[in-house]
Amino acid sequence: MKHRNAIKELYEVIFSRRDIRSQFSGQTIPEQLLAKILKAAHSAPSVGFMQPWNFLLIRNQEIKGKVFQAFQEGFEKEAGKFEAERQKQYRKLKLEGILDAPINICVTCDRSRTGPVVLGRTLNQDMDLYSTVCAVQNLWLAARAEGIGVGWVSIFEYDKLHELLQLPAEVEPIAYLCVGFVEDFPQKPELETLKWSAKQDLKNLVFSNSWGESIDSEWPALAKALMKKFEDL
Amino acid sequence: MKHRNAIKELYEVIFSRRDIRSQFSGQTIPEQLLAKILKAAHSAPSVGFMQPWNFLLIRNQEIKGKVFQAFQEGFEKEAGKFEAERQKQYRKLKLEGILDAPINICVTCDRSRTGPVVLGRTLNQDMDLYSTVCAVQNLWLAARAEGIGVGWVSIFEYDKLHELLQLPAEVEPIAYLCVGFVEDFPQKPELETLKWSAKQDLKNLVFSNSWGESIDSEWPALAKALMKKFEDL
Repeated sequence: MKHRNAIKELYEVIFSRRDIRSQFSGQTIPEQLLAKILKAAHSAPSVGFMQPWNFLLIRNQEIKGKVFQAFQEGFEKEAGKFEAERQKQYRKLKLEGILDAPINICVTCDRSRTGPVVLGRTLNQDMDLYSTVCAVQNLWLAARAEGIGVGWVSIFEYDKLHELLQLPAEVEPIAYLCVGFVEDFPQKPELETLKWSAKQDLKNLVFSNSWGESIDSEWPALAKALMKKFEDL
Repeated sequence: MKHRNAIKELYEVIFSRRDIRSQFSGQTIPEQLLAKILKAAHSAPSVGFMQPWNFLLIRNQEIKGKVFQAFQEGFEKEAGKFEAERQKQYRKLKLEGILDAPINICVTCDRSRTGPVVLGRTLNQDMDLYSTVCAVQNLWLAARAEGIGVGWVSIFEYDKLHELLQLPAEVEPIAYLCVGFVEDFPQKPELETLKWSAKQDLKNLVFSNSWGESIDSEWPALAKALMKKFEDL
């Protein structure tokens, strides 16, 4: 496979994916469709072909309620870390869709999967966590293509989440996702639109051969291309 | 955007993405194309819109040589952790394309970017690492669509890599990628083909509401769909 359409469509999905917190329509996701998205996640790369992920589908109102409570506690803790003006702005943000989204999915990493010695993981124990994140990103993109929004909530004590979902000791929660159809995907990330944080200039983030070395002399055409809009490439 | 073509093409890319170690053709990647792939990476989700990533493009032969040497040391260390037969099999595997690939890209995470307090990261300090992995997966998928193979090498001491690439203390190397055009993408993951590890049954990895709870009664249609081939969904 390598044809212009596939390429164009993929970039479209990548550029229009958003972290969704508040635009959920409430429409039920057909289980067939959910299966497709999970299959996309399950096709992620994994260290030593470990496939350390699990997917907990949560629509039980009581559990969602408890997770939401954990979020509220986390939100208070986090809010306290920001100074005056910034905290005021923080408190106005809607940072999760736990109760609004028809489904929540917790993606976990089973650190003991396939035994204690895993190819590619013996010198960096975190590689299984990274594999699990790759599965999250696949799920996110597949969902986006299907018109389904995903929001990753990270504002709670992970130990609390661990307890609420009755995870075994060796299993780590990686991503708590709020998932559902949305009417509209925002044009830009919400934190960018609200000027919480600015989009960084990609050209400044790319180095040649070692840290801090400009690409200007080694990669002049790349340096120029990085400053252009994608549509002009 | 939500049309059948975009959806179909995206799944095609996701399912045909592979970890590439040995099929590099040596063909130069146009810098324009490299810019596109980096822009895809830079559109990844990031905690608090932190965009903690950097991309080091490595084609200097001396640096590549040193990284390859670090890999060889790592390979010896890791090999020693496997028992007799398994170690024999391990030693036959080609696990990197550092010198074969025209470009190596090290994707790093700057843990200090945007200051000490980051929205969504105060209760889980690893969220920035996960954001960086999302960028890696975007890069990987965009490359795949363009006919470019990517292989993630994790078999070296990360401290060594840190030193070789002259990374500042607050910057962590996340992924060391070998990148180049390939003639052919293998049908299946190499470790599956060589029976190093088996593909797991997705149905067993999906739970309902909490750990270990079967989806059979809560999600019967999903349970059935997960056992079907993607083409039949």
